Amino acid sequence: MASMIGFSLVLFMTPSSQADEGFWLFNAPPLKQLQEKYHFTPDAAWLEHIQKSSVRFNIGASGSFVSADGLVITNQHVGVDALQKFGDTQHNYIRDGFYAATPGEEKRCYDLELNVLESIEDVTGRVNAAVPPDSNPETAVAARRKAIADIEQESTKTTGLRSDVVTLFEGGSYQLYRYKQYTDVRLVFAPEQAIAVFGGDPDNFEYPRYDLDICLFRVYENDQPVHPQHYLRVSADGPSEHELVFVSGNPAGTDRMRTVAALEETRDTFVPTLLAAIYRKEVLLTAYGERSIENARRAREKLFIVKNSRKGGDGWLAGLLDPETLSRISARENGLKSAAAQDSRFSNVPESYTQIQKAISSDPGNTVKYMFYEDFRVRSSVVNAVQATPLGFDSQLFRIARALVRATEERQKPNEKRLPEYRDSARPALELALFSEAPIYDDFEILTLTDSLTSLISRYGVDDQVVRDLLKGKSPHERVYELVKSTRLKEVQFRHQLYDGGVATVSAADPMIEFAQAADKVGRQARETVEEQDEVANKAYAEIAKARLGLEGVAFAPDATFTLRLSYGTVEGYEEDGKTMPAFTDIAGLYERADKHENRSPFQLPTRWTDKRTAMDPKTHFNFVTTADTVGGSSGSPVVDRNGDFVGIIFDGNIQSLTWDYLYSDKQARTVAVDSRAILETLKYVYHVPALVTELTGRRTPGN
Amino acid sequence: MASMIGFSLVLFMTPSSQADEGFWLFNAPPLKQLQEKYHFTPDAAWLEHIQKSSVRFNIGASGSFVSADGLVITNQHVGVDALQKFGDTQHNYIRDGFYAATPGEEKRCYDLELNVLESIEDVTGRVNAAVPPDSNPETAVAARRKAIADIEQESTKTTGLRSDVVTLFEGGSYQLYRYKQYTDVRLVFAPEQAIAVFGGDPDNFEYPRYDLDICLFRVYENDQPVHPQHYLRVSADGPSEHELVFVSGNPAGTDRMRTVAALEETRDTFVPTLLAAIYRKEVLLTAYGERSIENARRAREKLFIVKNSRKGGDGWLAGLLDPETLSRISARENGLKSAAAQDSRFSNVPESYTQIQKAISSDPGNTVKYMFYEDFRVRSSVVNAVQATPLGFDSQLFRIARALVRATEERQKPNEKRLPEYRDSARPALELALFSEAPIYDDFEILTLTDSLTSLISRYGVDDQVVRDLLKGKSPHERVYELVKSTRLKEVQFRHQLYDGGVATVSAADPMIEFAQAADKVGRQARETVEEQDEVANKAYAEIAKARLGLEGVAFAPDATFTLRLSYGTVEGYEEDGKTMPAFTDIAGLYERADKHENRSPFQLPTRWTDKRTAMDPKTHFNFVTTADTVGGSSGSPVVDRNGDFVGIIFDGNIQSLTWDYLYSDKQARTVAVDSRAILETLKYVYHVPALVTELTGRRTPGN
Repeated sequence: MASMIGFSLVLFMTPSSQADEGFWLFNAPPLKQLQEKYHFTPDAAWLEHIQKSSVRFNIGASGSFVSADGLVITNQHVGVDALQKFGDTQHNYIRDGFYAATPGEEKRCYDLELNVLESIEDVTGRVNAAVPPDSNPETAVAARRKAIADIEQESTKTTGLRSDVVTLFEGGSYQLYRYKQYTDVRLVFAPEQAIAVFGGDPDNFEYPRYDLDICLFRVYENDQPVHPQHYLRVSADGPSEHELVFVSGNPAGTDRMRTVAALEETRDTFVPTLLAAIYRKEVLLTAYGERSIENARRAREKLFIVKNSRKGGDGWLAGLLDPETLSRISARENGLKSAAAQDSRFSNVPESYTQIQKAISSDPGNTVKYMFYEDFRVRSSVVNAVQATPLGFDSQLFRIARALVRATEERQKPNEKRLPEYRDSARPALELALFSEAPIYDDFEILTLTDSLTSLISRYGVDDQVVRDLLKGKSPHERVYELVKSTRLKEVQFRHQLYDGGVATVSAADPMIEFAQAADKVGRQARETVEEQDEVANKAYAEIAKARLGLEGVAFAPDATFTLRLSYGTVEGYEEDGKTMPAFTDIAGLYERADKHENRSPFQLPTRWTDKRTAMDPKTHFNFVTTADTVGGSSGSPVVDRNGDFVGIIFDGNIQSLTWDYLYSDKQARTVAVDSRAILETLKYVYHVPALVTELTGRRTPGN
Repeated sequence: MASMIGFSLVLFMTPSSQADEGFWLFNAPPLKQLQEKYHFTPDAAWLEHIQKSSVRFNIGASGSFVSADGLVITNQHVGVDALQKFGDTQHNYIRDGFYAATPGEEKRCYDLELNVLESIEDVTGRVNAAVPPDSNPETAVAARRKAIADIEQESTKTTGLRSDVVTLFEGGSYQLYRYKQYTDVRLVFAPEQAIAVFGGDPDNFEYPRYDLDICLFRVYENDQPVHPQHYLRVSADGPSEHELVFVSGNPAGTDRMRTVAALEETRDTFVPTLLAAIYRKEVLLTAYGERSIENARRAREKLFIVKNSRKGGDGWLAGLLDPETLSRISARENGLKSAAAQDSRFSNVPESYTQIQKAISSDPGNTVKYMFYEDFRVRSSVVNAVQATPLGFDSQLFRIARALVRATEERQKPNEKRLPEYRDSARPALELALFSEAPIYDDFEILTLTDSLTSLISRYGVDDQVVRDLLKGKSPHERVYELVKSTRLKEVQFRHQLYDGGVATVSAADPMIEFAQAADKVGRQARETVEEQDEVANKAYAEIAKARLGLEGVAFAPDATFTLRLSYGTVEGYEEDGKTMPAFTDIAGLYERADKHENRSPFQLPTRWTDKRTAMDPKTHFNFVTTADTVGGSSGSPVVDRNGDFVGIIFDGNIQSLTWDYLYSDKQARTVAVDSRAILETLKYVYHVPALVTELTGRRTPGN
């Protein structure tokens, strides 16, 4: 799942009653659709069980509790962030995997935050009431921001829970999400990357797949494993073909109701800019990784993310360049316009489309500026301030510097006037990331910052005033070299000192801080422009949504926003070029595929796997595909059956599903999951971890 | 040598009498400099011997005759084009190498053309006389083109030799080069790629190096090996440290006297556009190559070229972004302006700089248009029409289609009005390339054409009229798929039929032809614009050169133009970060380096080499570095000593030499060569080819 490219311009679903489409809210589940099509009506207890067993990973992914003692399962490719940070010249956990045989061996993650959704509360009325009618965009943005900040702060104070107001339906609805936060998360098990992403980039482009893409963590509180109120039981049976299954996770963002004009901007500006950066980065990291074994280890996580993002971006663009795609969306738009013309309640629909078009074209260079100076994910909210990565400044030290500059500046403002990621409610997440002890490598920082800065210079020119301020008369390499070598931000203690000291202490305290300051104004300006554009566009989107609901009369789910959602579908193969792609693969198929490629990377099996070839039942189902809706961010989501049991875990989509960002279809597009049977079979017979198997299948481990 | 990125905006040398700088003409050698610095004066016989032993490869590289029976040595990375074309699912000559033990086993290349320079004649007077003074750029271009075409046609008729008029000093001088052409070239020997480019991309960034980057061909005429009048004797002694050596080859192009304004355009437009295409392509080819062993074979040559080009492009840009570079060039410009202001003969110098600036800014989008629609090498002349590769149309079938469209159109015009690559004098080269039987793979064509077309669409937008004409309402993939699957241009017989049939037969004969026609007009327009810009700029450059010569009084060599040149220098180590980089590496060092990297790719030695580790003298010199001037196109150039003996072969430059395109320095920048001793030692003890060794060291093989 290309979490890097997830971005959340919130939009609406196509109301196509036949398809298993939609990321549904847990407080507005698709009961009618489920009843009509599958004769199944989940009750409140079922929904609560799934909701509270589900876990959000702050790095942009999903997971679930799967034991009474706080075991959480997600993908290996989600765990890779933690695995990378644990590594050193002697330990390569991404490549070699990891297993903690005893609690003492479980490794505490540096900066991983997990969230469990405790409740959702509708606060639409309160937010809307705070915005004076007919106020200009700037005033409206401020008023709305204040209302949201107040609600979040109040809720945090009252409940002690992380409280985020989520904008749905482009402002048609505001919902307060309250999360329990866990920050003591420990690594328990990860397989070797070679089996987690067996088939690598080549197979990433097609189904079937043979990936054991899982990773297990244990959640602690007060240095003891938590005993979650809800957790999923891992099924020994897995799902069957055609069976109804559910996916509960945090899809990062979709664009399903964006107008043609908005999608054209995505196609012509956003995606090409992002792809150019991805191609560049993939080459950079590959070349760096080839230079030594240690380099390969250092670049491993990022390279994986970049490859995944490239796959996503390529497919995204290809879909948008297929005239079929936009003509379908255009037909839907025209249909709505015609219908609205017949109904006096919705006479403002054409004007709404015009408003959106106007907002988009109001400052054509701003999207790219935002990507280069603020964050490559335009309009996507970050889970913490350190996460935002501008295309021009790919460096952990830069991200830390900027977060320090902004945190101290924003702190001087009233809570509601701050950028959202610096509000009081976001403070724990910010501090977790900012004071992380995760290793930072000088050579790697110099490499990625020099390269990204060079790409910014090629974009804006050496004579640009900001570029001049950044470079200070030096070459990009020379400037970055001195910044990385001389900054003290590598010391966590120094970060604390600046953070606590406030603006005066931070200012000019460190060369990297100064550098971040030089870039800050442009980023903030680009962000303000986006917010003002959105204020106009969102109003129009809300009108269109209202018309749609009024005219079509079918409920639909809001676009994804990296918040917990429920989707559903069946386990289903499909046809491609006259060939039937089966719903399941099995363990025998894995070994055949390795044989066919002479066991050469990326089809090379770990030694442990070649040794245990005959130990397993070759007919054990390995991966399966389902029509259930997923996108980036869904990685690690549990697949559950009607009983609420864990039957698999989402880890990817096939190539046809890449258009799901803006257009769902279940003709060939599929979500890909690891079957729960493969998990148990391989934990038993390849990894020999009976304690883990026992814990996953429902009995407490001795001593707990 | 990044031959892909060689381009030939012809410029002048910095007259820095101390440095061993310059690509000198064989009819204007640097006798004074050599005498003063090295007390050596090559006589006419010496020069003729080197000139006629030197060989130009039409794919953009160099080589030399090294036996009485027509053996030609070049680099493996030059031979790779032929090696790729010979391959099939059963044979991977790039990976595994090749040796023809008997004449019968020598493999005839599909479309390799070698040129040997027979004579140079100054035709400046005649060309200049043909251009009426004060004619407008369009008229001047036409008149000049006619004069050049007439001279070439006359010469070809009289001598039967390939005759090219070469523009030097931006039109300050025109020289008629006459070449003997050889088109029956057969492959004799190539080592495994793993040793030819040992250390791969990582070591590509630094010296020392351990590469046996050689390849041997034999030239035939009338089905018999030629016995060239001149050939180089391969020295068993190699060069010594500090020794004066010469390089005779065909550097593709340099920009050493470009104005700051011109280099800024290169930095801001040309290089970033090229690099973006290179990054994209490297990712595409790597991903394709990973999918299967056969894919890896198919992509092997291109991937190598792309990686090499990326290295070149990155270094090029980094150099131009170093303020030091442009400030040095700027200081030179200002110095010349000040000096000219004191001398009434050169009062037009400031105006000349203004003219160049004006020409550059006259149509700012044109450079990129040229790159996407005409050829990625702006202003570089191609050796044959099929060679030109527009960034938007990376496909052999497209190149063939366009050559057919243009060849038949141009043929209707008088010879002198044609595009140069379609003149009568270029006909043999065109036909050799056009009717090549080299394999073309559908899947590879679909991959590269879809991707390059997608990048063109992202650049110009789906609403662009040309883009619409190209796509015909389809997605890029769908359109390219149908083109590649349905075109008959894969049949060489069909190409003949169209070529012979003329415009009427070609038109609408084939979908790929139609497709090429849709792109043709934009390419031609971009080219006309460049020619008109150059007509203005070149006049100004010629004035600047005149002033320089007049004011500085030191002769300097013209910029490189992919024609035979002589450079010189010494075998010399250098200092880097306080470390001494030695002048030579040895065989012992090779094995140590492989050990250090656990013999893993790209540091993996071929089995034959690991087996023969102890068979060789470990102290044998392997590679060496010299201050002699080289750039892309110099690949394969012989290194000769004062005796005119072959002591090594150029194959690359270190990273510091990448700025030699526009600024020579011998502080750290070095050319890298294979030592002749390593060649003989490894042919003897690793490859066991005594016949070849005997032939190379001077005795005729029995039976000849």
